[in-house]
Amino acid sequence: MRYLLILFGFHLLISQDKPNPKLTEIWEPEPEIVTPGIQSSAPSDAIVLFDGEDLSKWKNARGGGDASWIINDDKTMTVTRNGGIETIEEFGSVQLHVEWKTPLKMEGKGQGRGNSGIIFQRRYEVQILDSYKNRTYSNGQAASIYKQYAPLVNASKPPGEWQTYDIIFMEPEFNEIGIMTKRGRLTVFHNGILVQNNIEILGTTEFIGMPKTGKNEVSGYMGKETKKALYIQDHGNPVSYRNIWLRKL
Amino acid sequence: MRYLLILFGFHLLISQDKPNPKLTEIWEPEPEIVTPGIQSSAPSDAIVLFDGEDLSKWKNARGGGDASWIINDDKTMTVTRNGGIETIEEFGSVQLHVEWKTPLKMEGKGQGRGNSGIIFQRRYEVQILDSYKNRTYSNGQAASIYKQYAPLVNASKPPGEWQTYDIIFMEPEFNEIGIMTKRGRLTVFHNGILVQNNIEILGTTEFIGMPKTGKNEVSGYMGKETKKALYIQDHGNPVSYRNIWLRKL
Amino acid sequence: MRYLLILFGFHLLISQDKPNPKLTEIWEPEPEIVTPGIQSSAPSDAIVLFDGEDLSKWKNARGGGDASWIINDDKTMTVTRNGGIETIEEFGSVQLHVEWKTPLKMEGKGQGRGNSGIIFQRRYEVQILDSYKNRTYSNGQAASIYKQYAPLVNASKPPGEWQTYDIIFMEPEFNEIGIMTKRGRLTVFHNGILVQNNIEILGTTEFIGMPKTGKNEVSGYMGKETKKALYIQDHGNPVSYRNIWLRKL
Amino acid sequence: MRYLLILFGFHLLISQDKPNPKLTEIWEPEPEIVTPGIQSSAPSDAIVLFDGEDLSKWKNARGGGDASWIINDDKTMTVTRNGGIETIEEFGSVQLHVEWKTPLKMEGKGQGRGNSGIIFQRRYEVQILDSYKNRTYSNGQAASIYKQYAPLVNASKPPGEWQTYDIIFMEPEFNEIGIMTKRGRLTVFHNGILVQNNIEILGTTEFIGMPKTGKNEVSGYMGKETKKALYIQDHGNPVSYRNIWLRKL
Repeated sequence: MRYLLILFGFHLLISQDKPNPKLTEIWEPEPEIVTPGIQSSAPSDAIVLFDGEDLSKWKNARGGGDASWIINDDKTMTVTRNGGIETIEEFGSVQLHVEWKTPLKMEGKGQGRGNSGIIFQRRYEVQILDSYKNRTYSNGQAASIYKQYAPLVNASKPPGEWQTYDIIFMEPEFNEIGIMTKRGRLTVFHNGILVQNNIEILGTTEFIGMPKTGKNEVSGYMGKETKKALYIQDHGNPVSYRNIWLRKL
Repeated sequence: MRYLLILFGFHLLISQDKPNPKLTEIWEPEPEIVTPGIQSSAPSDAIVLFDGEDLSKWKNARGGGDASWIINDDKTMTVTRNGGIETIEEFGSVQLHVEWKTPLKMEGKGQGRGNSGIIFQRRYEVQILDSYKNRTYSNGQAASIYKQYAPLVNASKPPGEWQTYDIIFMEPEFNEIGIMTKRGRLTVFHNGILVQNNIEILGTTEFIGMPKTGKNEVSGYMGKETKKALYIQDHGNPVSYRNIWLRKL
Repeated sequence: MRYLLILFGFHLLISQDKPNPKLTEIWEPEPEIVTPGIQSSAPSDAIVLFDGEDLSKWKNARGGGDASWIINDDKTMTVTRNGGIETIEEFGSVQLHVEWKTPLKMEGKGQGRGNSGIIFQRRYEVQILDSYKNRTYSNGQAASIYKQYAPLVNASKPPGEWQTYDIIFMEPEFNEIGIMTKRGRLTVFHNGILVQNNIEILGTTEFIGMPKTGKNEVSGYMGKETKKALYIQDHGNPVSYRNIWLRKL
Repeated sequence: MRYLLILFGFHLLISQDKPNPKLTEIWEPEPEIVTPGIQSSAPSDAIVLFDGEDLSKWKNARGGGDASWIINDDKTMTVTRNGGIETIEEFGSVQLHVEWKTPLKMEGKGQGRGNSGIIFQRRYEVQILDSYKNRTYSNGQAASIYKQYAPLVNASKPPGEWQTYDIIFMEPEFNEIGIMTKRGRLTVFHNGILVQNNIEILGTTEFIGMPKTGKNEVSGYMGKETKKALYIQDHGNPVSYRNIWLRKL
């Protein structure tokens, strides 16, 4: 091989003769201009799902009537016991921002305290729970991918304080006969702290049993109909929400 | 195959006889408790690299003397023309928060306006630039992985306003003879907007030529010595910084 | 950046001063020596599962009694109608060699002609079928990963001729609660022709419905008990086998 | 969640009402029919590169004149000292079959005994060497991806015996500015034994230094011009070849 090394040296000399930085520039397409919001308010290209005014973007997930959760005076809403609500529009992969608060008055313990959940496409749940000094199973506490992945750390604030989730949800892919060919993925920041780092979603969130992976399968506790809506769970606890928006990816 | 389906049906009956949700609970280890900060201030487990007081965590990257950039009265600092600065400590994979501002008085254009950069391990640069109404090549504008990936959108604020980067940096892996066996990855939020979605870093950031992938190779404009410090570039423009922290992943 | 390019040039000069090829040599560990077989016979480190003498490495998969398929005079065996057979030993990831022949006298059509199958770990079936001028659904013909992946091409020989499968099977991984965290993979050569190129196994092979992915789930037509044996299917057709061996990977 | 489990049970009842296996059949496209060769001879869709008659598919890699290696009476050819030869046609991803033999009369040791090589696209070398009782560095022995991956085992036959490589080569992908975005892959069977299991090619094969990853970069000992030809190395030892064919993937 030795004699070929001479060619190698020569190559370096000539190829560096006129180094041209433009060769590695990409000019088109120009990225779209998006105006960011103040703090965690919605960017200009976001779909605002709840800004405190009304629940017009939502409906009751059982029966499909109007969403009837309580709207509070401070531009927030609170889970009311008549079932989960879901968006009228359906979504694929998204960046989601949501703020939530568990009740200041602590009642119950473990899974029974401040339980709700953000569920993508009736299949994949990011747990909402009062996990401040309230031990439960690690893959069931706040910011867990419920029963699949514990959060990397517990970034919970005390009950009664507003908390944030900033989530990247990449939806899975399916083949023509409905078999999952590429898993979905989730990244979650809880109060600005990375707690789920690009995890592979293993299948539907299941309270009991194994995740399911078919295109026409949903979580066991989500009925039977598939739908790509964003769903917020009524788990019997008066969890509050505000400032919910997402961007399609 | 038909007769075996009978077994299948039977299996379902018995396995659902006593569904036990505890079988999918994980209790240990308990995730560490971390207290989040107010707004974008540092969480309790973060290493604060700059909080406005001094540059004691940094040094001059040329020669290694003290970092001598200007500290301003408002707990910020400004790039000064005596070369880039880098942290004394070295880091692997991190979550990084940094706030930056390009000069209110616009000078130059394209790459010449408000240019600086956040460089991981002397190899991988997230570009800082005034990209507000200032066109340059897409993979060289603010929030690009310089000369590798354009940002998904342009989330820039006007010059003179503070902007944020929230970055997940996963370092690459190398084998025993220094060949890269697993690429690094970057996710970047610019002002809260996802602009780099878990991209594979293709190799060292290079102003000219192809990325390099050896363990002992650094970006062509970063000298020759490898080091896992965090580096902030002096590109001749008085870009300002504040509130810099990271968490080891 | 221009002044730093000088450093770059300098670096090249010194690093090429004494280029040393030894820096990229790896000496340890030394690969183990394996003596290859003649033609497609077993290498020295293989486990020979059937060499024509007896079925001592196998048992009946229903009930667990002795495997009672017919051993022929020419060191081959033929599927007999008393159920599939499986190895007594269990295996993880393997390289498998198997030779098979469908009956010279063609009977039935589609899935009914020369049907058998090689099933890994009671979950993943590589189809055996007389697919020579015998159309069926593409993901059900010879060398398909049954109901998941059609072969890249149809490399079938006519009935009555011996055919070969050379298979790389990489088993899936599961987490502590039995959820699949990494999919298995299969590469298949049919008569020396690549027909499955490192495909991701999507879950259990199912005659009806979606693949399942739990650690304790097997194919619907394989009963209910998990086992990592290698299984050969009795599908009612007198398919013959010879020269079966595998190597643990 | 308990009351929702009732819906879950109901769902199972109705969805299993009429299980239909046809839902998971895929009929189109039908895999193309390919006739396998006898033993390791070429299948019907292969491009035969050398069958013992002539070197009309090849040319001298230095200068580009006719390939002038010796054709022997037994339908084989032998490396002759006037430089490597390469195919006139260029290829992307392929399945390659090649047979080779090192001289019965052993001369030299380590890298000096029976050295040649199969090089894809002037970048990626599968080493050919007499590695029968001839120790060298593990990532440089027969069936290594030279200076990147040692073979899993040493499946070498003694000098003077014909040996086979069956290789799956998947070429890398590059973006519009020539940066590698997806690594190539190699699977190698040596004498029927799996020795490289779907490894990621880390970049160009280099005698000295790190692999390179640019679209316009070739191995240091391969000159400077990129070309997707298949190349056989003249390393000064009279290694013989026969029966070379490939299939485009």
